[in-house]
Amino acid sequence: MGEISNISSVSTLVEIAARKGVRDVVLSPGSRNAPFIISFNGHGAFNCQSILDERSAAFVALGIAQQQKKPVILNCTSGSAVLNYSPALVEAFYQNIPLIAVTADRPSEWIDQGEGQSMRQVGLMENILIGSFNLVEEHTEDDHWHNNRLINEAFEMAMSLSRPVQINVPLKEPLYGTVESNEDSIKTFDVMIPKAFLSEIDLDSLASEFNAAERILVLVAQGNDSLNCLDVLREMNADSKVAILTETHANLYHLGFVSCIDRTIESFLKSQLESDYVPDLLITIGGNVISKKLKALFRRHKASITNHWNFGDEVMDSYQSLTRLIKVDPAPVLSFLKDLPQNTQYQFGNKWRAQFFQMEQRHLSFLAKCPYSDLKVFELINDFIPEGANVQMGNSSVVRYFQLFNQLRNVSYFGNRGVSGIEGCTSTAVGAAQASDDVTLFVSGDQAFRYDSNALAVKSGTENLRIIVINNSGGNIFRIIDGPKDHPVSEGFIEKVDEHSIRKLVEYHDVDYLEAHDLNSLEQSIQSLMDPKRMMCTVLEVFTPRIESPEIFKEYLEFLKEAK
Amino acid sequence: MGEISNISSVSTLVEIAARKGVRDVVLSPGSRNAPFIISFNGHGAFNCQSILDERSAAFVALGIAQQQKKPVILNCTSGSAVLNYSPALVEAFYQNIPLIAVTADRPSEWIDQGEGQSMRQVGLMENILIGSFNLVEEHTEDDHWHNNRLINEAFEMAMSLSRPVQINVPLKEPLYGTVESNEDSIKTFDVMIPKAFLSEIDLDSLASEFNAAERILVLVAQGNDSLNCLDVLREMNADSKVAILTETHANLYHLGFVSCIDRTIESFLKSQLESDYVPDLLITIGGNVISKKLKALFRRHKASITNHWNFGDEVMDSYQSLTRLIKVDPAPVLSFLKDLPQNTQYQFGNKWRAQFFQMEQRHLSFLAKCPYSDLKVFELINDFIPEGANVQMGNSSVVRYFQLFNQLRNVSYFGNRGVSGIEGCTSTAVGAAQASDDVTLFVSGDQAFRYDSNALAVKSGTENLRIIVINNSGGNIFRIIDGPKDHPVSEGFIEKVDEHSIRKLVEYHDVDYLEAHDLNSLEQSIQSLMDPKRMMCTVLEVFTPRIESPEIFKEYLEFLKEAK
Repeated sequence: MGEISNISSVSTLVEIAARKGVRDVVLSPGSRNAPFIISFNGHGAFNCQSILDERSAAFVALGIAQQQKKPVILNCTSGSAVLNYSPALVEAFYQNIPLIAVTADRPSEWIDQGEGQSMRQVGLMENILIGSFNLVEEHTEDDHWHNNRLINEAFEMAMSLSRPVQINVPLKEPLYGTVESNEDSIKTFDVMIPKAFLSEIDLDSLASEFNAAERILVLVAQGNDSLNCLDVLREMNADSKVAILTETHANLYHLGFVSCIDRTIESFLKSQLESDYVPDLLITIGGNVISKKLKALFRRHKASITNHWNFGDEVMDSYQSLTRLIKVDPAPVLSFLKDLPQNTQYQFGNKWRAQFFQMEQRHLSFLAKCPYSDLKVFELINDFIPEGANVQMGNSSVVRYFQLFNQLRNVSYFGNRGVSGIEGCTSTAVGAAQASDDVTLFVSGDQAFRYDSNALAVKSGTENLRIIVINNSGGNIFRIIDGPKDHPVSEGFIEKVDEHSIRKLVEYHDVDYLEAHDLNSLEQSIQSLMDPKRMMCTVLEVFTPRIESPEIFKEYLEFLKEAK
Repeated sequence: MGEISNISSVSTLVEIAARKGVRDVVLSPGSRNAPFIISFNGHGAFNCQSILDERSAAFVALGIAQQQKKPVILNCTSGSAVLNYSPALVEAFYQNIPLIAVTADRPSEWIDQGEGQSMRQVGLMENILIGSFNLVEEHTEDDHWHNNRLINEAFEMAMSLSRPVQINVPLKEPLYGTVESNEDSIKTFDVMIPKAFLSEIDLDSLASEFNAAERILVLVAQGNDSLNCLDVLREMNADSKVAILTETHANLYHLGFVSCIDRTIESFLKSQLESDYVPDLLITIGGNVISKKLKALFRRHKASITNHWNFGDEVMDSYQSLTRLIKVDPAPVLSFLKDLPQNTQYQFGNKWRAQFFQMEQRHLSFLAKCPYSDLKVFELINDFIPEGANVQMGNSSVVRYFQLFNQLRNVSYFGNRGVSGIEGCTSTAVGAAQASDDVTLFVSGDQAFRYDSNALAVKSGTENLRIIVINNSGGNIFRIIDGPKDHPVSEGFIEKVDEHSIRKLVEYHDVDYLEAHDLNSLEQSIQSLMDPKRMMCTVLEVFTPRIESPEIFKEYLEFLKEAK
């Protein structure tokens, strides 16, 4: 161990972090947080990196934590720097990712007293955190015990609940003194979280609802719990009355799952047929659902959903039909239900699967003759995603396009769908690439990419990062959804038209650049992008037609609709 | 008037904004806020612009409001977009600048229900706002009256207190319906703020303290009240016992004021002489003080400060010596005190002025032979600032360098010294340039410039913006202050070394670019930059030596110290 700060609250936090097994630390430059910079670097247990823009830094940390499924520490100076963490913290909050934001502060007696970089930091971000802890300056043994206890609690909370916490640390000058170690005075405790099981009475009551149901639909969205369910859902899929719908970033691959929801439901939406696809028992697993159309469908027919079970910790009643919130791991419960005697007279699951396969054919027919456009580009991208890749789907139209294409086996999909902001998608992909040995493919719209271009300043550990930017000259999402296109202010305000190439921006950051303007150049450049011999972060800019792409997308939807 | 949204809360807000005289609106693209985008554009009373990065958008609004001294409206979509406003809002809070953040939200019943771009927005930023208002969906006349009242209150609060407010607006689909007008149902009220005067008893008690004092020091920092005091302070400066110290961004120009505080005090700091410069009556006007050394001096001798009067609205006791918080406009009070009979036996004011002029000579002697370095570059910049210019001083070393050089007559100085963050300085300068017909000169360090480069995406109204980026390859501030330089982790962590030129970044944004590497090229390029025939936003990158610049700065301080 090298030198660490002689400020006890700092050395205590750093030592506890090491003992709790946290390894990745994203620092931002500053003076008030210098004791942390010195200590995380000096301690020896941590992988430290420094990122200038705190907003980007926090999303990089999010990307690392997303891949490692363990907490990452963020540390910045006092004042507005802290607020730049907030977009990533709220994304972590709703995506159930553990981040530990360690924010330097002035001592409380100096707040609002005209000191530089100071503001009311205590309680600043409580709406978007699972816990907010404020350390004290240590003058007594009790102060030390207090800090030691709060730090333990903060780390345990972030780890057990898998959500973000803040530890705010008031620091007084001098900030640069060091010691060898203060390990002896530091104690750790851990928290044993009981495993939760349902009682037999509860299981029986679920069983009777399951048996009584004629149309069962299991919907799986993004979430940590989903992966445990893969095996049981595969088996359950054999049940003729059970339909299993998965969104791409649930990362549940099985040929028999209905995995492209929007494409599958397009043909019956708002027709007389749509009620046939509404379950009487809806079982949901995971967080936010991307498919707005599915949500609208179930809400239109909420009266038909006799029972809605949601596996989760908080009341989330997305379809206005919730009957049971089930606060346990879904896998054993589903396993128990799967083994109940099947009733083969109901064909609800088969009906969904037939629809899925029919629309898959329809999708392929359209794509076979589809001209160069956003949609066609996504087909090619999907064709070239390498085995084992980690795909980061940008907001907002990118993720919707991805969900139209069959999920690939041995490929993992991620997206910032907690609050679905565009400000940190590139940075998140950078962090994910750092934390993974696999090829990380990030696909982004041009606007989101321009927004978060500070992400490219991060160089270390991104050799495996491949970025495709679909440059359709603006926020094309607003041409896909109804409403905006009819307004004269749409161009330039609701969508933001920008015809610039991103080439110079990419070159400024010393990142390799490729471009494509049509199908031929796209195929060549994707091959080059995915070449296993490529050894550095590379951006491929794909220019697509701004006006035609949404038109072709609408034709695609019309073509799907025409399915009988 | 064109079309406006048919959502009553939206049209009411927009109409009240127009009636209250607000004209500038900074929008960011989005769908949930489309009713506002349509209405602000459609109404006809507003100058609307669209900026993609909400963080940058909010700082642009800050720059406009700083120049116009009236509120600017911000509007963005729901979710994390809102949090990107927070760094500019906290800066506005501590700099007393009125911003009105109108944030779109989901209806409250849909929060935490898995909807996209939704989070707990109510009360989210209360720590950094003077007021936070949450509108309701209008179903009854009372709802409309409620919203109408809250909107009036929010606008009046921002205007009368000159600080930021948030109006959070829950919006339900459909979002794109329009009407011609709903003016008839909208009412405005205004708030009459009483003018505050001190009683004669209070004035007499100030007079007796003023008379009894032997050493009076008036310190003026950034703030709206300062400008009113110019005339009275000029006259007061004739009083032999009164020293008047002004920071650059107080914008009080007078040859006899001590306007370069750090340079003036360097020679006596921590010597036996320093106590002679401490007042027994300290009078402070304005907000945060930049000079850390002056603050430390007064704190070291707080026992000698018998009375400290602070003109302001809140308790701010920066020197641990506050005796009176005076909640009135300082100008008439100072005017009353100035007219008291003078006691010419005390020479405290003259002592400060003599010190100021002596150190000015010393400063000039050093600069005459100073080699090419950050310090020398600032001398040249000062020589070429055009008459009438508006100077935007970047954080963090830039503003400290500026304060070493005599303030120029007919030049105004601004800086984000509320919380002194670096994330929005360029954007603030962009907004200030838009709101001014004068040349706006923004001087920035390279790190702060890279951080906020999204600011350059704004093109409209920036023809008068000239930017000088001092590229010393990193956060040089940390080489000037003691402490960091002794740590091996300093390079790359506390300071962030970056050797890149910003040329490509600037060219990507289609902004003109100039560069300088030495005194000769600097002089030529500054002339070109300041050429009145230049008609577009231009960036001059000045490369300065990373290691030598702080060394030369230290020699400068040593040279000042050697003054007898």
